[in-house]
Amino acid sequence: MSAKNFVVCDWGSTNIRAFLYLDGKQVEIKKSHEGVTTVRGKDCEGAFDRLTAEWFQKYGPMPTIMAGMVGSINGWTDAAYLDCPVDLGDLSSQLTEVHHSKGYKIRIVPGICVRDKDNWNVIRGEETQLAGAFKLSPSKVYIMPGTHCKWVLADGSRVNSFRTAMTGEMHSIMMKYSLVGLGAGEQEDSEPDFMAGLERGYTENNIVPRLFEIRGANILGGIKPCHVGEFLSGLLIGAEVASMQKIFKFTKEDSPLTVIANDFFYARYEKALKLAGLEAKQLDADTCFLEGIIPLAQSLL
Amino acid sequence: MSAKNFVVCDWGSTNIRAFLYLDGKQVEIKKSHEGVTTVRGKDCEGAFDRLTAEWFQKYGPMPTIMAGMVGSINGWTDAAYLDCPVDLGDLSSQLTEVHHSKGYKIRIVPGICVRDKDNWNVIRGEETQLAGAFKLSPSKVYIMPGTHCKWVLADGSRVNSFRTAMTGEMHSIMMKYSLVGLGAGEQEDSEPDFMAGLERGYTENNIVPRLFEIRGANILGGIKPCHVGEFLSGLLIGAEVASMQKIFKFTKEDSPLTVIANDFFYARYEKALKLAGLEAKQLDADTCFLEGIIPLAQSLL
Repeated sequence: MSAKNFVVCDWGSTNIRAFLYLDGKQVEIKKSHEGVTTVRGKDCEGAFDRLTAEWFQKYGPMPTIMAGMVGSINGWTDAAYLDCPVDLGDLSSQLTEVHHSKGYKIRIVPGICVRDKDNWNVIRGEETQLAGAFKLSPSKVYIMPGTHCKWVLADGSRVNSFRTAMTGEMHSIMMKYSLVGLGAGEQEDSEPDFMAGLERGYTENNIVPRLFEIRGANILGGIKPCHVGEFLSGLLIGAEVASMQKIFKFTKEDSPLTVIANDFFYARYEKALKLAGLEAKQLDADTCFLEGIIPLAQSLL
Repeated sequence: MSAKNFVVCDWGSTNIRAFLYLDGKQVEIKKSHEGVTTVRGKDCEGAFDRLTAEWFQKYGPMPTIMAGMVGSINGWTDAAYLDCPVDLGDLSSQLTEVHHSKGYKIRIVPGICVRDKDNWNVIRGEETQLAGAFKLSPSKVYIMPGTHCKWVLADGSRVNSFRTAMTGEMHSIMMKYSLVGLGAGEQEDSEPDFMAGLERGYTENNIVPRLFEIRGANILGGIKPCHVGEFLSGLLIGAEVASMQKIFKFTKEDSPLTVIANDFFYARYEKALKLAGLEAKQLDADTCFLEGIIPLAQSLL
């Protein structure tokens, strides 16, 4: 057993990804769909063993560190939320111990939260990406697009505050369950429709009446049904950027804002930020995650 | 067969209600759940006969007039949308004929629409309520809360323009399918939570980051899970009123705004309008519907 062998887990709502490090180097990745929503706190040890037992049989017990929804109330063990402002350099002293029947050394990274009367907010999983991003790209503002898009105010290794826009989830449920997506059918890319939505969402920041109008335009021939999703995406992202700019009062001096996203999302947010007069910079989410979690894993060795 | 016998139908997405008038007086109401969403254009004649055959057997053929989603593309016959501005006094000359195998005289009221680059909007069913409301309570502005809340600018018997807020539908799908309602359980009334949401929604008109914060507050103990729906209701209605005020630039001179709603919704919208410095007045939706449709039925006699 080498002192530099360890396992790193990104355990979210829908998936688990486990990374095996031998002698300090990543040698294998395993994935399963036993995310927290599936397991719901019932057999986390089983889900973990099913995914990684082969590694433990081959290389013996290895310290394991986990981040993500596995630390939520429906996860393996309820890991704390640390209150902002919080120094992510201190995460290694705030890990939560997990009981494994074989006595494996497993720890979960805490989430972070804001408990203001004006802002109740939680992050679980992204704090680990942020810890990595702080090293790779020092910025005042980080944006992490996705189901729940996080906007984080940082200062060195400290998170001062953050907010969340439910943009991805809203897009998904509006297309799936609301009149906006009803009968819209298979969707196609459309830069002009995305841009039209983006400009409306950003300049008005007034989505309540605009959502139904997507349906109206669909019925009356103002938009092709297959482009409804693109307009909606633009509308929501535009409103998100306008809202965050209004709340946080971003100026050019806060630029470039670091967007932790794949190319697809980065392209959309870069356009939205440009409309807001702000510059963007891209970082890869997996790179940030590993950069953030490896020092925590090493702290267990 | 009296010349003053007729049938009136309010045929929406989820229900049909038929009203029998004999000698000009309402004598019976029948209801079924064969709304347009259930029937989907397949057997509208059957659904109609199942509900009303008894009346036609007893009193012979009677002219029948219908309003609502029965005139949509998924209804019995696609009745036109009339473009705004439109005089609702002219509805009787714009009725769409429906084919019934027994040759009954059945007509559907047209919907109304706005086709502006800045506003694509449709109404189907509420135009009939409006025609009645115009007589019962002359106003510059009518608000019709519900799944899709309509805000209508009127001038005498003319509809100049209107917009729709998807407030009711958003509340329903956010509670049912989004993280906002996840695990919130049985809901309870709470005036303070409704008012807190209302003030936030109205004063900020910035719901994109605020939706997730309801979840955050729920997790962190800032709101009771059973009051999530009340806060969300306030937030959405507040944002709706702020949005419409911003778009239509309402002032005190437009007051009182006539709200066509039951007591439950009226109480909520009255509070929201008060916050916006606007006065409200209540009308009952069924009264408006019958006041609007009876002259149309009589035009068929």
